[in-house]
Amino acid sequence: MRIHATFVLATALAVTRLSGQSDDIQRRYQPVADSIIAAATADSAAWNRLAELADRFGHRISGSESLERALDWILAGMANDGLAEVRGEPVMVPRWVRGPESVELIGPVRRPLPMLGLGGSIGTPAEGITADVLVVSSFAELERRAGEARGKIVLFDVPWQGGYGPTVRYRSTGAIAAARAGAVAALLRSVTPYSMRTPHTGMTNYDSTVARIPFAAITVEDAMLLHRMQDRGDRVVVRLRMGAQSLPDVPSRNAIAEVRGRERPDEVVVLSGHIDSWDVGQGAMDDGGGSVAAWEAVRLLHRLGLRARRTVRAVLWTNEENGLRGGTAYRDRHDAELGKHVLAIESDGGVFRPKGFGFTGSDSAFAIVRRVGALLAGIDADSVSRGGGGADIGPMMQRGVPGMGLDTDGERYFWYHHTNADTVDKLDPRDMALCVAALAVMAYVVADLEQPLPR
Amino acid sequence: MRIHATFVLATALAVTRLSGQSDDIQRRYQPVADSIIAAATADSAAWNRLAELADRFGHRISGSESLERALDWILAGMANDGLAEVRGEPVMVPRWVRGPESVELIGPVRRPLPMLGLGGSIGTPAEGITADVLVVSSFAELERRAGEARGKIVLFDVPWQGGYGPTVRYRSTGAIAAARAGAVAALLRSVTPYSMRTPHTGMTNYDSTVARIPFAAITVEDAMLLHRMQDRGDRVVVRLRMGAQSLPDVPSRNAIAEVRGRERPDEVVVLSGHIDSWDVGQGAMDDGGGSVAAWEAVRLLHRLGLRARRTVRAVLWTNEENGLRGGTAYRDRHDAELGKHVLAIESDGGVFRPKGFGFTGSDSAFAIVRRVGALLAGIDADSVSRGGGGADIGPMMQRGVPGMGLDTDGERYFWYHHTNADTVDKLDPRDMALCVAALAVMAYVVADLEQPLPR
Repeated sequence: MRIHATFVLATALAVTRLSGQSDDIQRRYQPVADSIIAAATADSAAWNRLAELADRFGHRISGSESLERALDWILAGMANDGLAEVRGEPVMVPRWVRGPESVELIGPVRRPLPMLGLGGSIGTPAEGITADVLVVSSFAELERRAGEARGKIVLFDVPWQGGYGPTVRYRSTGAIAAARAGAVAALLRSVTPYSMRTPHTGMTNYDSTVARIPFAAITVEDAMLLHRMQDRGDRVVVRLRMGAQSLPDVPSRNAIAEVRGRERPDEVVVLSGHIDSWDVGQGAMDDGGGSVAAWEAVRLLHRLGLRARRTVRAVLWTNEENGLRGGTAYRDRHDAELGKHVLAIESDGGVFRPKGFGFTGSDSAFAIVRRVGALLAGIDADSVSRGGGGADIGPMMQRGVPGMGLDTDGERYFWYHHTNADTVDKLDPRDMALCVAALAVMAYVVADLEQPLPR
Repeated sequence: MRIHATFVLATALAVTRLSGQSDDIQRRYQPVADSIIAAATADSAAWNRLAELADRFGHRISGSESLERALDWILAGMANDGLAEVRGEPVMVPRWVRGPESVELIGPVRRPLPMLGLGGSIGTPAEGITADVLVVSSFAELERRAGEARGKIVLFDVPWQGGYGPTVRYRSTGAIAAARAGAVAALLRSVTPYSMRTPHTGMTNYDSTVARIPFAAITVEDAMLLHRMQDRGDRVVVRLRMGAQSLPDVPSRNAIAEVRGRERPDEVVVLSGHIDSWDVGQGAMDDGGGSVAAWEAVRLLHRLGLRARRTVRAVLWTNEENGLRGGTAYRDRHDAELGKHVLAIESDGGVFRPKGFGFTGSDSAFAIVRRVGALLAGIDADSVSRGGGGADIGPMMQRGVPGMGLDTDGERYFWYHHTNADTVDKLDPRDMALCVAALAVMAYVVADLEQPLPR
């Protein structure tokens, strides 16, 4: 009770004090916000930079040469931009390599099936694994039919269930459930609401209680095909070949650059995206766009001579996709400074047309960031809602740093997610420029407020 | 003037006589139309039959074993359905085989590019053709830059121009234009309004005035990629390998089955789709669906005991895609009977939700088929517009047979067209059942009218 009363009192005081500050926000910052928006949208610089990154280096999985060459190019670019404190902070990252792989339908007819092994999966013996297939629609069905799974390849033909969360469970833990039922390998219907015969990769997990079995995604179309064949009473036989391996960790980097704070440079607003990707497509949407937008937002502040009271720091995370080592290493390296991290922002939902932000932090901080978000009403990006952040800033957020994620109109995000169709043409130069504007305004104003965001 | 006056008089008489007949159409045929619609939509029989065809035999290019095995299965199914005059009418068809093929971007970076050789293209030498790329946006640009094309691979990066017709010209004649400018091979941006990194194949042509050069489609995304690289001043180098060959013609068949006319069996309404496809996907939309719908419509009439005055004949054409030999052979074989072909109907736009029909024939016949189409108002498929037919019935139509094409809501038709994503799941069982209903009603009523459609 005492704690509660004190908390309520403190919050009330804070809100009183801060709403005075908040009332000032529009008057004080609308002109600078408008100048940032005008400068961001004056050209296609951000999209062109992203296209050059995507076209030159392609996809950038952790442990790959393309990721490290992209990081070299980014760090050189940041220095060339005249940004401060440009550095690559070392991070050891996992190195999973796909190797040659295939799925072939052997019976009732022979046909190659487009596929992508899932990240972290083990491989098969060189001759592959040839086995009968048991198709199930859910974990519950697998439990009911566990007696039929032994020695087979279990295919999870699970339709998109109105969202990523409920559907991706099957990718995350399908190999565990299938192994528990005695399966020798597992296949997954790609996690997507729409398919053009497009396989989707992504991370999968094992646990220590059952054997590790190979796990790969096939397309929505072919999962339905195998299901129809099973329903007709056909014996469905598949050969799965995967050369996947997990190799020893290798060094990578978080790429960092700043506009130093003019009054309190040790207080920091982080603006971020992840530069690694899956080993498909160009990793343009996930998340080349977010990481270049964060970089471009900081470059824009520098170019406009906008030094806030506090430091605005661009961080292009390594190894979000299959390890989260970049975000974890940042938290560990900067642990003692996290108390002075005022806000961490991440863009990892595709730099489509921005709608606003999602925020995780105190009520009083939420009240403030909503007022800051209102500066973006002119570009319809002023929605600030409760809840939000990003995978890479998650470790910081667990230590109490307020977190924020850029919300965009990602209607087709999961069509391209982790596929060969994740290419830069899916993103619009104007939309991306608006994302840069939204990120820059939010970061600059929060970094410039007299008081740090209350925790 | 005399001719004109006579024509006007004849037309006026015909319209008077026929509109009396037409006035009867709704009263006489609405009950039977409704019973056909009810029976067609009572189950998913048509879609299930298409799925079995697509799943068992896959794609069915002319000259392939899968096409001939599918035809055997269809003819056995027609006989098993109890249809009359079941037969495969011999047709010699071309045999183009794709062979192994690839496009690799060699410079400024190395990257494999998804591709499909175009139908009819020659192959490359075994080591492929490695050359600099010249990207152009149009034939006009190629003409302006013809001096730069010699010894290069010309890429036509032509965006979808609001329709298939204006865009597909580049696929049809791109190799000729590129060869004329001295190119050693040509590449095409796939002809589609939407891409998920999906190459589209299709027929291409040569002419006798210039050398034949290999011609392949790459994806929209990669055409844009190469164009961006060229715009940046990069030297773009590609290696094209194609094992394509044109082999000697082989025998195939048009699959035919009928419900014989009860009064004038030698007068015929043809109901049709083409059973061949490109060698990708399942050829389910193009045109497994149309050919199975035509077959199912005739089966439905048989099952309901509906024998019209005239014969209703299902024809599943062979070799639409790369030769039109099926339609041509039918015309040649039945030349003497074409005067008694009252109407030829084709479904080759995908069995999506039907909207009605397009018709090519006389004004007086148009007035009648519009009244027949009105019987489909209950399923919103009663639009009958001027113009329409189908590639396979084209040779007959040139001899004066009135022609008609099923119109459907094919918004995404060209997303899947000639790709690996042309699979049966893209079609909805209810929509396909409605197509069967529309085809059966139109064919039955036109076959049953007292007078044949006036030419």
